[in-house]
Amino acid sequence: MFNHQKYGKQYFMPPTVSYDWVKKETVEKAPAWCSVDLRDGNQALPIPMNLDEKLEMFQLLVDIGFKEIEVGFPAASDTEFNLLRKLIDNNMIPDDVTIMVITQAREHIIRRTFEAIQGAPKAIVHLYNSTSEAQRRQVFKKSKEEIKQIALNGAVLVKELAEEAEGDIYYQYSPESFSGTEVEYALDICNSVLDIWKPTPDHKAIINIPATVEVAMPHIFASQIEYIHKNLYYRDGVTLSIHPHNDRGSGVSDAEFGVLAGAERVEGTLFGIGERTGNVDLITLAMNMYSQGFDPELDFSQMNAIREKYEKLTRTEVHERHPYSGDLVFTAFSGSHQDAISKGMKYRQETNTEKWDVPYIPVDPVDIGRNYQADVIRVNSQSGKGGIGYILETNFGVKLPYKMNEAMGYATKKVSDQTSRELSAEEIYHVFRENYVEYHPHFELVDYYFNKGTGQEVTLTIQKDNERIELQGKGAGSLDAISNALKVHFHMDYALEVYEQQSLGKDSSAEACAQIGISHEGEIYWGAGIHEDITAASVYALVVAVNRLEETVQKV
Amino acid sequence: MFNHQKYGKQYFMPPTVSYDWVKKETVEKAPAWCSVDLRDGNQALPIPMNLDEKLEMFQLLVDIGFKEIEVGFPAASDTEFNLLRKLIDNNMIPDDVTIMVITQAREHIIRRTFEAIQGAPKAIVHLYNSTSEAQRRQVFKKSKEEIKQIALNGAVLVKELAEEAEGDIYYQYSPESFSGTEVEYALDICNSVLDIWKPTPDHKAIINIPATVEVAMPHIFASQIEYIHKNLYYRDGVTLSIHPHNDRGSGVSDAEFGVLAGAERVEGTLFGIGERTGNVDLITLAMNMYSQGFDPELDFSQMNAIREKYEKLTRTEVHERHPYSGDLVFTAFSGSHQDAISKGMKYRQETNTEKWDVPYIPVDPVDIGRNYQADVIRVNSQSGKGGIGYILETNFGVKLPYKMNEAMGYATKKVSDQTSRELSAEEIYHVFRENYVEYHPHFELVDYYFNKGTGQEVTLTIQKDNERIELQGKGAGSLDAISNALKVHFHMDYALEVYEQQSLGKDSSAEACAQIGISHEGEIYWGAGIHEDITAASVYALVVAVNRLEETVQKV
Repeated sequence: MFNHQKYGKQYFMPPTVSYDWVKKETVEKAPAWCSVDLRDGNQALPIPMNLDEKLEMFQLLVDIGFKEIEVGFPAASDTEFNLLRKLIDNNMIPDDVTIMVITQAREHIIRRTFEAIQGAPKAIVHLYNSTSEAQRRQVFKKSKEEIKQIALNGAVLVKELAEEAEGDIYYQYSPESFSGTEVEYALDICNSVLDIWKPTPDHKAIINIPATVEVAMPHIFASQIEYIHKNLYYRDGVTLSIHPHNDRGSGVSDAEFGVLAGAERVEGTLFGIGERTGNVDLITLAMNMYSQGFDPELDFSQMNAIREKYEKLTRTEVHERHPYSGDLVFTAFSGSHQDAISKGMKYRQETNTEKWDVPYIPVDPVDIGRNYQADVIRVNSQSGKGGIGYILETNFGVKLPYKMNEAMGYATKKVSDQTSRELSAEEIYHVFRENYVEYHPHFELVDYYFNKGTGQEVTLTIQKDNERIELQGKGAGSLDAISNALKVHFHMDYALEVYEQQSLGKDSSAEACAQIGISHEGEIYWGAGIHEDITAASVYALVVAVNRLEETVQKV
Repeated sequence: MFNHQKYGKQYFMPPTVSYDWVKKETVEKAPAWCSVDLRDGNQALPIPMNLDEKLEMFQLLVDIGFKEIEVGFPAASDTEFNLLRKLIDNNMIPDDVTIMVITQAREHIIRRTFEAIQGAPKAIVHLYNSTSEAQRRQVFKKSKEEIKQIALNGAVLVKELAEEAEGDIYYQYSPESFSGTEVEYALDICNSVLDIWKPTPDHKAIINIPATVEVAMPHIFASQIEYIHKNLYYRDGVTLSIHPHNDRGSGVSDAEFGVLAGAERVEGTLFGIGERTGNVDLITLAMNMYSQGFDPELDFSQMNAIREKYEKLTRTEVHERHPYSGDLVFTAFSGSHQDAISKGMKYRQETNTEKWDVPYIPVDPVDIGRNYQADVIRVNSQSGKGGIGYILETNFGVKLPYKMNEAMGYATKKVSDQTSRELSAEEIYHVFRENYVEYHPHFELVDYYFNKGTGQEVTLTIQKDNERIELQGKGAGSLDAISNALKVHFHMDYALEVYEQQSLGKDSSAEACAQIGISHEGEIYWGAGIHEDITAASVYALVVAVNRLEETVQKV
């Protein structure tokens, strides 16, 4: 039954609402990032990571630059307990990285958690209990006061064990299922926990507010965070943290608005792996900052390698349209987009623009290890001349005259319409060769030589049907001489309208490609020639163009 | 090179900023939804849809309830032109559905567009040109005034042809690449276009503001939309529309905030198919409304069927964590989540709660054609007793006593830890049978009969190793009599601590499952029995429990 009346509001507004956050434009300073891939991410996998895979993931997170990593829930799983022992006993945690372990607010679980981190030079102990109205009523059948007491008992024990521990223990508390909790009640628990921990600016505690299940729009979450930010005790001794999920597809906005509203730390995962719709994707958050010129303090220059490792370890694929990392996110198939991109790229080269502002590509794919050839312009039946010209130029060095590019666009479209699929760069080049380089339905050029070596008098041999014919011609230059020979023989009249040529490689021995457009009664007929000798390239180009004109004449 | 300094701000703030939108909590009334699957969606596909596939997609969109469908860019593609002719010539467009066609503001393209819709009873002609600062400078090399003039010339011609057309033509204008356009300039073009069209409340025009490339946070987009909303001419004759993309992963928030800020119409696609990171996903938007009790005016009760068709037509997979439609979005693997969900589901049944508020599941999967058994609780090494008990109960009707469920949890965890993968419901049931129904390492029950038919005196035969032994017993009831016989034979002392039984089916001939817990020196030993006869079920359960106790005694 599809009946919306079965649903109501599942969130709570804070008692007072302020909108300081909305006046800020964007996130300019990186929050402290905390990866929960090994915990929240891992627990959502049909096949969780094994010990070796977890160690590999830990190293990946360190390499990217994470300074806080939640390693697991050691009291709930032997694998996670053993992972911690391995990391600690083998000194595998870099000095500037702090591990975090999560624990429910229950005595034996807290004690086991401290066993897991014994000997760690420092660690965050992350205490949580569920506080939502629905869970108090349905799951725990306990009063607000009783649920609060669970948190406080836990906080007391954590403090006691932390003071006995040899390492430096930092405290973190989360009112789990915050998204369904009365905001002032959640705040009250947090403040009471802080009253036990008494954190200081020198040794801060973390208060972490999760959007455990996203049940409200992100500006509601922002107003909740702003309220907590303004009413938290020991404010300068507390790092206010957030932990958004993505049930409404707005985890990114929860996180960004949460930071504008006063949060100083964000928990999330790579590519948003996590329960149900996932945690917030820290890559998107970091790249969003990056693309506006702010330092995300994480390094995604090796995006493909990161993604490959992540897909292997989690057995989860990154969707082709996932922001910044998906296969297709830099790709333009549509003609007008391709046209704008190729003009924008050219503009950027020519003007040495300081800031990146190529149309339709919010970040330069090269920055994260992708490339223009494979990723940006791809051609199917929706594409146009801009993209096709771009592909010929960037992949093969062939730079078509504007009007010829248009004709080449139609020729390619015909093929992609017929095949009903994407064409590779090689296939496009094949279309080009077939239509403009190797096109001579009427006659072929067999040979030519200039009589005086000056290029003003030519003898050329053509093959037409089964005949070889020798022609003579004179002109102002070599091309003109050949053109005149052909005009006379075929009783043709045309003007040499366009002549362009470019080298296909960087040294002087490279082949050249010439394009020639001849006009006759208002139409232009195109040909191209590729040859090591620049004269030969243009002669061959002319021969194709004349073939095309001859074809039209014969049809009429 | 991973260098954020290469980037700067790529958007423009409106001249005045107001925050009316932020004071609204959520979207309560469905905007007019316009599907652009056949245009923006299709043009992003490596293999675009063919004519038949497009017709099938059109029908799918109609079935879901879309009243406005952008059918294509007929002047740019023969397939799209032919699709329109097919739809119109065969009267395939329902009366309450309006088709839309997009056209650049160029004369021959506009004319061809009107040819494509000739004979349609009504249609929206969607005129656009690109207006961004970057494209004016890099691509068109034209002034603001010149770019504006392109729009105005187009608007004049569209009006002229619309007035000649036999059908009822509605106007739409989009300042394409709005996200990089000065807001007041975009507004000026829109207002000037409206001055040509002079729309009325009886025959509204559409002004559509795209976040062509998402380059700002969603509250910035909201402030841009609110500014346009407040400064648009012919306001009561205009439907203000938005068209968000998802480059920063915030398309959903752009759309929702845009609506709060004054937009009355949203363009997007199913599952967010579209250029690069995609268009905004209209399913997420609709389901976000639905899950808060508001009517989305679209029907997603057949989500699986919709998804299946979509995946076939677009050759694109929906990601397993895509909101509302992904495979895993209702799934809980973690023990504490499973525990809360199963308690919440039970609470809901017992109390007949009006509004849905089961923890961790924002919408009831059944509403969209999913089911609890397959989708919600899935078990791996991260799972606990709650989920396991839930699976036994919902799949097999077996409802374990609380403490027995805990023991069953450990038994299952052992298996999932060893196999390192997810366990199916059948595998969990197998663990249950092996550990509690078919567990008799010491002796088996061969037969029993009650001497007087009253159940107070029993004769039972057991098989121990290779011996058959006949025992006698007396008691207050049949189970007590059997228990006493076993106690005497095995020199055992225990108390019958827990006894529960439930039917495994709905009619009286169904099998029953009994669970028995016997206590000895503070420990409980569990057994279960399944039999058509309720006495037999409990006798078998007791035999397993005694086997377990005997096992411990022998170990000591």
